[in-house]
Amino acid sequence: MLDYASLAALAAVVREGSFERAARALHVTPSAISQRVRLLEERVGCALVVRGQPCQATDTGRRLCQHVDRVRLLEHELQAGLPTLDPAGEARVRLPVAVNADSLATWFAPAVAAFAASAPVLLDVAVDDEGHTAEWLRGGAVLAAVTASARAVAGCNHRPLGAMRYLAAASPAFVHQHFADGVDAASLARAPSLVFSPKDELQTRWVRRLCGQHVELPRHTLPSSQAFVVAAAAGMGWGLHPESLIAEHLRQGTLVALVPNLPLDVPLYWQHARATSALLDGLTHAVLAAARAGLVPPA
Amino acid sequence: MLDYASLAALAAVVREGSFERAARALHVTPSAISQRVRLLEERVGCALVVRGQPCQATDTGRRLCQHVDRVRLLEHELQAGLPTLDPAGEARVRLPVAVNADSLATWFAPAVAAFAASAPVLLDVAVDDEGHTAEWLRGGAVLAAVTASARAVAGCNHRPLGAMRYLAAASPAFVHQHFADGVDAASLARAPSLVFSPKDELQTRWVRRLCGQHVELPRHTLPSSQAFVVAAAAGMGWGLHPESLIAEHLRQGTLVALVPNLPLDVPLYWQHARATSALLDGLTHAVLAAARAGLVPPA
Repeated sequence: MLDYASLAALAAVVREGSFERAARALHVTPSAISQRVRLLEERVGCALVVRGQPCQATDTGRRLCQHVDRVRLLEHELQAGLPTLDPAGEARVRLPVAVNADSLATWFAPAVAAFAASAPVLLDVAVDDEGHTAEWLRGGAVLAAVTASARAVAGCNHRPLGAMRYLAAASPAFVHQHFADGVDAASLARAPSLVFSPKDELQTRWVRRLCGQHVELPRHTLPSSQAFVVAAAAGMGWGLHPESLIAEHLRQGTLVALVPNLPLDVPLYWQHARATSALLDGLTHAVLAAARAGLVPPA
Repeated sequence: MLDYASLAALAAVVREGSFERAARALHVTPSAISQRVRLLEERVGCALVVRGQPCQATDTGRRLCQHVDRVRLLEHELQAGLPTLDPAGEARVRLPVAVNADSLATWFAPAVAAFAASAPVLLDVAVDDEGHTAEWLRGGAVLAAVTASARAVAGCNHRPLGAMRYLAAASPAFVHQHFADGVDAASLARAPSLVFSPKDELQTRWVRRLCGQHVELPRHTLPSSQAFVVAAAAGMGWGLHPESLIAEHLRQGTLVALVPNLPLDVPLYWQHARATSALLDGLTHAVLAAARAGLVPPA
């Protein structure tokens, strides 16, 4: 079998970002951590950690970390069936998951928080664009993900969650200043838009649907779902916002829709590693229930 | 002089993340972009872009991009003084800045949004831990940063902003379940904490101040300032929250302070590239005014 003390050391280095912090977390010396990781690298025949600040897993390193996560889930199952068994170490199981920022800012946070409050887990939530969270699952960095990818990752279960509804909105003053003559390719090419990150294609997709052509948009980058709303209300730019985040602004008139009745629906999926695990099942249950309440039902 | 068409191509590739998108943004062919970047690499004698998804600047590439940002600021100044001069291309100047997530979620967003709404700029906001935003400035990825670093980055001006006040808080039910016998090293070693990211040391620092020793904390990772508050209110864990973000929760009793009168104040600084630029001055002015209103005054 594999050497699980070494695998635990590797997982700790990747989680903590340094050999020193991994040592502290596992109550051993940094040189013990270093030796275990080196042994594992010799056995596997390639580098598992890119030494840096922070230390990061190589592709192979990530696969080994995901294996550790899965074995921990299995140990937890075993322990539930054999209460007299008490493996040394943490009583809580780490569950790494990836999610898009807008889901985390709306329906996802209350769901996982309620689950985590009552289950013996420690959640490691990573945030990325919904078009990229499936990569985290494929690469082994997480055990489950909220993703826009309709294709199942190998070895994973795949469930439709419904769609996140986005509305293109801006402040009334911004609309007056930039779109007095209508929302079209010419005005959109001049009016500053808001994007969440360079990966954020929502604004471009919405414009292509509206105008039937690609328009190069001037854009501010603002990587926070709530700051996005604050910035739009202050007249910094127009952007696509989750409907639920701006409902109050729309009611009060501090934000208005650029074009009535042209929402952009982004279908989301829940993908998770196939593993016999009551904990992963519990998380899935909480996520599906919250998605039913917070998303537009799947077609 | 340097070849500015090539430098603009490089900056576009780094900003857009791909040669195709850079070509679209500059209205030229991808092969023109590719040729310009290659020429520049031959002239400088090293790689400037790591080709990947997304393409990323090397250290030298980042310095050249920062130089382009500075030259664009100077061009904008020149244009303001010579209204008949109209350099081809964008009328708006890109201002890349780095900020910590909690600042962005509280005092920073309204300030920069109001500034960006009235100035001819496009803001590229990057988020990182306040202990790491100075790196972005040092590496040339941004022109200004909100940072916890009291040391001025070479070539930058450095102004104290005041301190972000954090309070350790959790839900009443969580406190009842985990801290019925007091908040001490023993109970903190078992109660799940919340951290924003692996770089987030606030909880550990607060515990060291309270207990006079290092305690290894079990922790959930949740990279969203607002989800952090939602999760705490749902009883997922305790954590250090910006006072202004949880004021309403504290009033309503959905969150309570773990220990009365033990805030953690994190002094923040505004550092920006030394450049004669009315735009950068305007942003600095907006940031300093918002910090005066939203932060604890500097000692």
